[in-house]
Amino acid sequence: MNASPDVLAQLRANPDLQPGRAIRDSAVVAIVLVDGQVDHTTGLYMLRESVRPWPIWCTDSAYADLTLGNPVLGVLEFFCGVDRRRIDLDDTGFNVDGVPGIRWRALPVASKPAPYSPNRDSPVAGDNLALVIEDKVTGKTALYAPGLSAVDERVWRAMQSAACVLVDGTFWTDDEMIRLGISSKRARDIGHLAQTGPGGMLEWLDRLPSATRKILIHINNTNPILDESSAESAELARRGIEVARDGMEILL
Amino acid sequence: MNASPDVLAQLRANPDLQPGRAIRDSAVVAIVLVDGQVDHTTGLYMLRESVRPWPIWCTDSAYADLTLGNPVLGVLEFFCGVDRRRIDLDDTGFNVDGVPGIRWRALPVASKPAPYSPNRDSPVAGDNLALVIEDKVTGKTALYAPGLSAVDERVWRAMQSAACVLVDGTFWTDDEMIRLGISSKRARDIGHLAQTGPGGMLEWLDRLPSATRKILIHINNTNPILDESSAESAELARRGIEVARDGMEILL
Repeated sequence: MNASPDVLAQLRANPDLQPGRAIRDSAVVAIVLVDGQVDHTTGLYMLRESVRPWPIWCTDSAYADLTLGNPVLGVLEFFCGVDRRRIDLDDTGFNVDGVPGIRWRALPVASKPAPYSPNRDSPVAGDNLALVIEDKVTGKTALYAPGLSAVDERVWRAMQSAACVLVDGTFWTDDEMIRLGISSKRARDIGHLAQTGPGGMLEWLDRLPSATRKILIHINNTNPILDESSAESAELARRGIEVARDGMEILL
Repeated sequence: MNASPDVLAQLRANPDLQPGRAIRDSAVVAIVLVDGQVDHTTGLYMLRESVRPWPIWCTDSAYADLTLGNPVLGVLEFFCGVDRRRIDLDDTGFNVDGVPGIRWRALPVASKPAPYSPNRDSPVAGDNLALVIEDKVTGKTALYAPGLSAVDERVWRAMQSAACVLVDGTFWTDDEMIRLGISSKRARDIGHLAQTGPGGMLEWLDRLPSATRKILIHINNTNPILDESSAESAELARRGIEVARDGMEILL
């Protein structure tokens, strides 16, 4: 899911991602995008030497961002090419070729399209997604939601029924970047719900069943939870909430 | 020079590049581009959180590539912004603010503009550059030329007068990628002069004074010189030619 600027380091660090069956091989069979943001798409440039066009799953909104505002998909056409697959916003879900046994479902979420998005100032459903990833045999689901500025009814239902939630852990406090003097923007201004404060992510996670695995992802480098010796890290541990780390493996 | 997709790893690995004088600080004061290729510009996305607009030096050709074909400079405008500085093709040279004591001179070279360049099928002078970097006090120069499909008279003069040449080491043989079955393109088709073969880079380097430091850069992962135990590596050693490595420091 998504193509991080760190994708080359991820491929190097994870032998499962490079089975080496052929020259220039990788285990990546498709790319599913939750939006058209830089941090989710810059890795596409590093994947340009693929021997076949990449199947890239995205909504029409993200496709517009990535062909108009920041046309990385247009650039890829000069290299490996793009086999674009549309993510529809109806509730039927989709299957990704090469990923058997898994059903995907897209939930439009309240967040923010990329700054260069044609929709930046008037967001529409589909600018940002959460993904429900379901094991078709067991019916167990994981919810992946790196950007969430609010937990709406549909997202909340998906969180409640998931065996594992991987949710927006960008900021600890809404004014974190302002207090550090590096930005004039609040978490909510750029599409993220902070962990603390009234209605913050911790309150939502506390209301989930205790059996639900709760993992914060997409953590900004200003967030004190990255310091494992911080009081904030200790508070997460008390609440049974984990912080994602590179190479983490999740078994449901 | 240039902004590699590996720029974040470069910043992490080199303490000199992160003096840490302030939050989000780096020692990078400007970016000088030799062309508008993906491998020289993708790092710009990772530098987007700069607290000030980046001074970006490039020719009009590269500027067109990076605002039309692959508008990374347009994308940066939504983040830190760009303070574009024009590299002219006259021979007067330029100074980069924040890099005292150094004079830069741009040499147009025969290579290839990016695939998405408006000039791809009819290259013009300025699509690709070599850079002559001169210590104003000692007069010593280094020549930096990551893409060279031919050594013309002007480049040859710059090579002869340089204390150190850092030149296109992309391919060992012209048909290297064809023989590996990963591309139908020869080195010359994508703007690179192979090391071997008649008129190859090794012949040029052999004709330089023995005191000249000779370093191959921009080495493709198909090039056998990356294997330090290869016969090709041994041949370079015999000829007094070095292979660049990450973190290499060059004193003239």
